[in-house]
Amino acid sequence: MKNRAFYMTDLKKMQMKDTEMPITREGEVIVKLEVVGICGSDVHYLEHGRIGDFVVDGDFILGHECAGEVVELGPGVKHLKVGDRVALEPGVTCGQCEFCKSGKYNLCPDVQFLATPPYHGCLMDYIAYPENMAFKLPDNVSSEEGALVEPLAVGLHAAAQGGIKLGDRVVILGAGCIGLVTLLACKAYGATEIVVVDIIEKRLEAAMKLGATRVINAKEENVLEVIAAWTDGAGVDKVIETAGSEHTVKQTPYLVKRGGTIVLVGLAAKDIIDFNFMQIMFKEADIKSVFRYRNLYPAAIGAISDGKIDVKGIVTHEFGFEETQKAFDYVIDNKENVVKAVIRMG
Amino acid sequence: MKNRAFYMTDLKKMQMKDTEMPITREGEVIVKLEVVGICGSDVHYLEHGRIGDFVVDGDFILGHECAGEVVELGPGVKHLKVGDRVALEPGVTCGQCEFCKSGKYNLCPDVQFLATPPYHGCLMDYIAYPENMAFKLPDNVSSEEGALVEPLAVGLHAAAQGGIKLGDRVVILGAGCIGLVTLLACKAYGATEIVVVDIIEKRLEAAMKLGATRVINAKEENVLEVIAAWTDGAGVDKVIETAGSEHTVKQTPYLVKRGGTIVLVGLAAKDIIDFNFMQIMFKEADIKSVFRYRNLYPAAIGAISDGKIDVKGIVTHEFGFEETQKAFDYVIDNKENVVKAVIRMG
Amino acid sequence: MKNRAFYMTDLKKMQMKDTEMPITREGEVIVKLEVVGICGSDVHYLEHGRIGDFVVDGDFILGHECAGEVVELGPGVKHLKVGDRVALEPGVTCGQCEFCKSGKYNLCPDVQFLATPPYHGCLMDYIAYPENMAFKLPDNVSSEEGALVEPLAVGLHAAAQGGIKLGDRVVILGAGCIGLVTLLACKAYGATEIVVVDIIEKRLEAAMKLGATRVINAKEENVLEVIAAWTDGAGVDKVIETAGSEHTVKQTPYLVKRGGTIVLVGLAAKDIIDFNFMQIMFKEADIKSVFRYRNLYPAAIGAISDGKIDVKGIVTHEFGFEETQKAFDYVIDNKENVVKAVIRMG
Amino acid sequence: MKNRAFYMTDLKKMQMKDTEMPITREGEVIVKLEVVGICGSDVHYLEHGRIGDFVVDGDFILGHECAGEVVELGPGVKHLKVGDRVALEPGVTCGQCEFCKSGKYNLCPDVQFLATPPYHGCLMDYIAYPENMAFKLPDNVSSEEGALVEPLAVGLHAAAQGGIKLGDRVVILGAGCIGLVTLLACKAYGATEIVVVDIIEKRLEAAMKLGATRVINAKEENVLEVIAAWTDGAGVDKVIETAGSEHTVKQTPYLVKRGGTIVLVGLAAKDIIDFNFMQIMFKEADIKSVFRYRNLYPAAIGAISDGKIDVKGIVTHEFGFEETQKAFDYVIDNKENVVKAVIRMG
Repeated sequence: MKNRAFYMTDLKKMQMKDTEMPITREGEVIVKLEVVGICGSDVHYLEHGRIGDFVVDGDFILGHECAGEVVELGPGVKHLKVGDRVALEPGVTCGQCEFCKSGKYNLCPDVQFLATPPYHGCLMDYIAYPENMAFKLPDNVSSEEGALVEPLAVGLHAAAQGGIKLGDRVVILGAGCIGLVTLLACKAYGATEIVVVDIIEKRLEAAMKLGATRVINAKEENVLEVIAAWTDGAGVDKVIETAGSEHTVKQTPYLVKRGGTIVLVGLAAKDIIDFNFMQIMFKEADIKSVFRYRNLYPAAIGAISDGKIDVKGIVTHEFGFEETQKAFDYVIDNKENVVKAVIRMG
Repeated sequence: MKNRAFYMTDLKKMQMKDTEMPITREGEVIVKLEVVGICGSDVHYLEHGRIGDFVVDGDFILGHECAGEVVELGPGVKHLKVGDRVALEPGVTCGQCEFCKSGKYNLCPDVQFLATPPYHGCLMDYIAYPENMAFKLPDNVSSEEGALVEPLAVGLHAAAQGGIKLGDRVVILGAGCIGLVTLLACKAYGATEIVVVDIIEKRLEAAMKLGATRVINAKEENVLEVIAAWTDGAGVDKVIETAGSEHTVKQTPYLVKRGGTIVLVGLAAKDIIDFNFMQIMFKEADIKSVFRYRNLYPAAIGAISDGKIDVKGIVTHEFGFEETQKAFDYVIDNKENVVKAVIRMG
Repeated sequence: MKNRAFYMTDLKKMQMKDTEMPITREGEVIVKLEVVGICGSDVHYLEHGRIGDFVVDGDFILGHECAGEVVELGPGVKHLKVGDRVALEPGVTCGQCEFCKSGKYNLCPDVQFLATPPYHGCLMDYIAYPENMAFKLPDNVSSEEGALVEPLAVGLHAAAQGGIKLGDRVVILGAGCIGLVTLLACKAYGATEIVVVDIIEKRLEAAMKLGATRVINAKEENVLEVIAAWTDGAGVDKVIETAGSEHTVKQTPYLVKRGGTIVLVGLAAKDIIDFNFMQIMFKEADIKSVFRYRNLYPAAIGAISDGKIDVKGIVTHEFGFEETQKAFDYVIDNKENVVKAVIRMG
Repeated sequence: MKNRAFYMTDLKKMQMKDTEMPITREGEVIVKLEVVGICGSDVHYLEHGRIGDFVVDGDFILGHECAGEVVELGPGVKHLKVGDRVALEPGVTCGQCEFCKSGKYNLCPDVQFLATPPYHGCLMDYIAYPENMAFKLPDNVSSEEGALVEPLAVGLHAAAQGGIKLGDRVVILGAGCIGLVTLLACKAYGATEIVVVDIIEKRLEAAMKLGATRVINAKEENVLEVIAAWTDGAGVDKVIETAGSEHTVKQTPYLVKRGGTIVLVGLAAKDIIDFNFMQIMFKEADIKSVFRYRNLYPAAIGAISDGKIDVKGIVTHEFGFEETQKAFDYVIDNKENVVKAVIRMG
């Protein structure tokens, strides 16, 4: 067996190269990758070579949204079998720090996260992976859907952090990939009225198709006024910011209801933002944030299998493995049109 | 305007009589009833004259699942208008005791609950009711659905007490009316696999139609064995007992998973039940119970309006107001066939 | 019986005048006030005539921290007796809105709060008050302590919002009255290490006396550096901002630990503050805020009676009722020295 | 260096023998044991050779409540140093199953728990132990207190499961070791009134000394009547059963308040108990249980260091390592007198 990987070799440059076949350690399986999604962070590394303190150094394999088939079992594997298709949760955590032990493993400082330097990603044929982070897909969940569990999990964590519950009115700021999976997640958590805001008409159309109750094009309407009119000035139960723009972060205190919750998901370009805390305090509103996700893969897979969440609906573009460079180029050049591009391996 | 009411005048005897038009107090509206559901407790009062310490004394009006149209506004009414259709939450609480102030108003010792002696029910043309317990129905929610919000709220409270969440595996014991609304509620709260157990085939068919993943006829299969086989001996996340039989209550510790939750909804005939607490303790399982519901009418109405919950599906029989005695007789004689009978007023 | 009240008649002007004896409505008692504390908001109204949208219009009675003796029972009073000493919770809420019904009555939009225009305060001999907001004091809790329950409740709500629990490390920014009651509350909730920060040495001494583990004078030490050194760069579980200064609000993201919680209690002069949300998001920290308090009087009184909280320790100055103007003048002129001044009535 | 261990060689028989020096694996330290407490489960194994499905097979080392000094660091140890004194949390869990990943590691099915067959305990001179389950003791916490963290953690978990909070009224059934640590824990969590019930006067004296508000000797007083009288028939917020007798488990539904919580800690001899679920349901009470504990060692050590919990107060007897057989014999013969016996090693 041959293992090929697509390496980022320089800014905006990629190259397919042969690499070694992986070797399993205790509790690991070998997975033949079938689908890998392209995430905004992959694109950001390719364009800029870094995200914050994480700096690409040398040839680097991108990709962390993935699913594939188990082709070999390492020692001590208990539950998986050869032939099982699995979605891989990309963060492997220590299991021993206070965060891991208390169930918040997404905050583990020693996490090894795919495609986050110094850890390579999964744009390759074969990877060795711990069984406990490889989640079996039922027959009625495709490997493409399996790869999409990763972005979906961000949306589910946003909904969970916001305590979205039956009957909630929600405003989602931003209708990019994360905004849309958050929409799917809020619906699955029971929100009954979900307004999605963006400035790109195509995205708003996608939001309507995926189940938004209403969309607002912020270029054409004043979001604060529309929401105030709709709620008799009260605001909505939950506001989820996924656009990551300074402007939308600043809107959240005006949109949320007394006793409501703001969830911050999108990372703004600026660290420091002018924010109306007086509004927050008079409303006794909560502000929560989202750093990746935790303990959500099984629920996500169950909800896809069950038909509660139609995650395929976010895929707009598909490419073959050999076209990986082309796929990234396309995404870089068409950011407004691409919600989610995926690469079908082999 | 004339106000007619159906009175229970003796065990199993009912009679329509004219009664006074109600008068509004501060904050109350007059509602013309349109639909009243028949609940098991109504039937129990009619057959036995009492439920526990609540004893019918003299002529008594049954009925507490209801919806109708606002026809008059009392002083100080702020939000409702004449012509609004509303569902009435049947418990009017004091608003001042420790339970009310801490959000658990269903435990208020001074609650005035419709059709719970000494408070009459709503099987009549007109009733005066506090605005804050009369919830406006949107245009796409019928008054029949409005009346069904009451039993649905029990199911929603069961799901809430059980902390049902996306991806949960649930076993519901009992597929009578409360079992079925609990099924609807669990689906709306995100449970992805819901097994419903009963011994009456018709009810199991209803459960399948309303979205159960699987049903078990406990006369034909051994429930504990089936669930053990399905879950590799682990049990399910949540077990909700709605049958109210000693036998099913006793099954719950064996069905629940380590760290899982049992929710008791059905009142068993026996106060005292042999129960395997050793199982509970080794699993560190929680046991929760359900006494009516709280703060759920808006969410229930939103979920019906939104299409998340199709509550109409539980109605099996309809009668006119003049047929009220006949309706109760029918229900008493056909307990196995009737999931929910409703009376359409005038 | 004669009823005297101290009115604010103009900015910084007060005058004692006779007023009518109050009359009880259903469920109310007449309380002879014994102790009234002076709160920062009282002083603010006296100096500036307004707080935000609440504007003093005409002669106005200040005071909302109070306790006294029941001298008369109105109709329908169930639990209190003449001679009972009680602490009055100053916000009387509607009991019927969605906030009241869900246990968050502090967010009730129709609250009538003592000394918040248009509702007078309690700097008078007799007041009529709803029984359900008048909490009986045990024999070993003095009326002075009863009056102090009000500020203490703010501290307890801050600790509750922060989810303070056994073993927490806490930083409290600000050691004024609210900072100190928050310190008492955090200790009672189980925090084991509590660092208090201020720039006034006397306040820091008070904090040490009341049980702080450590104090930092922010004029002499760099708070961020000290806390980083102490926690190996990790930050503390909970940061509670009570100083209400822009500077301290801005410090909170740097002080809190990954997965930790910031609680905002102090109202800053500026509505809008530059805030490092990037820190918040990488740490997935929560931000909670405090608007008054809810459901805490019984626990506060229990904790004082039990010896868990020594709330008397915050009183620095006492005055007689006739000296009320002098008391306010003194507080205005000595803001740095006064933690809490109380007025002993009669 | 020589390593000696005390082995249980037969029912009620123990023998000191030399054993191999332990060898560290990745992330482990060698700890020289200083204090080992004797737990009821140790005694039970010695008397009966089994607890439920856990059967002693061959020579077996007892003891799981322990503290000692780090004398050697294995590879990859990050935080501990030679000379640190540590308390060992006796359950080493897998870190990878769904229970571990979601923060409920006490339910890990692959836990290796000291002195639970087939895993030996710690009644020996030296043990190798994972750093992440060895918690450093501050200078002002003795190794004896360190060994007592284990039973204390059970009490803390009981209080946490019960949601004990400031102002709670609690009844604790049973004043043996676990009853007393639960008392200490409830105080630390803020309960203001704690009634302890037992039938042995000495234990009740101990409870009074450790801070119970009141004790009831159930041989002399009717517990249900006393609590009903004290609470005007309402019952208490929380009832914690630690006696593990059928009789006391059955009392809990009558003692708890509407909306309150029962916590089951003591394992009764009988698996199946007659229980009044009707009481539970009318009160909508919760039943929680306790299986060991999780994530509590740091808080426990902090609370001891801080003076919030005086855990030394539960020790009634001390023995030397050579006296281990004598210690066990004494405990077996004096169950009513011994709250906690500890063995001081070398």
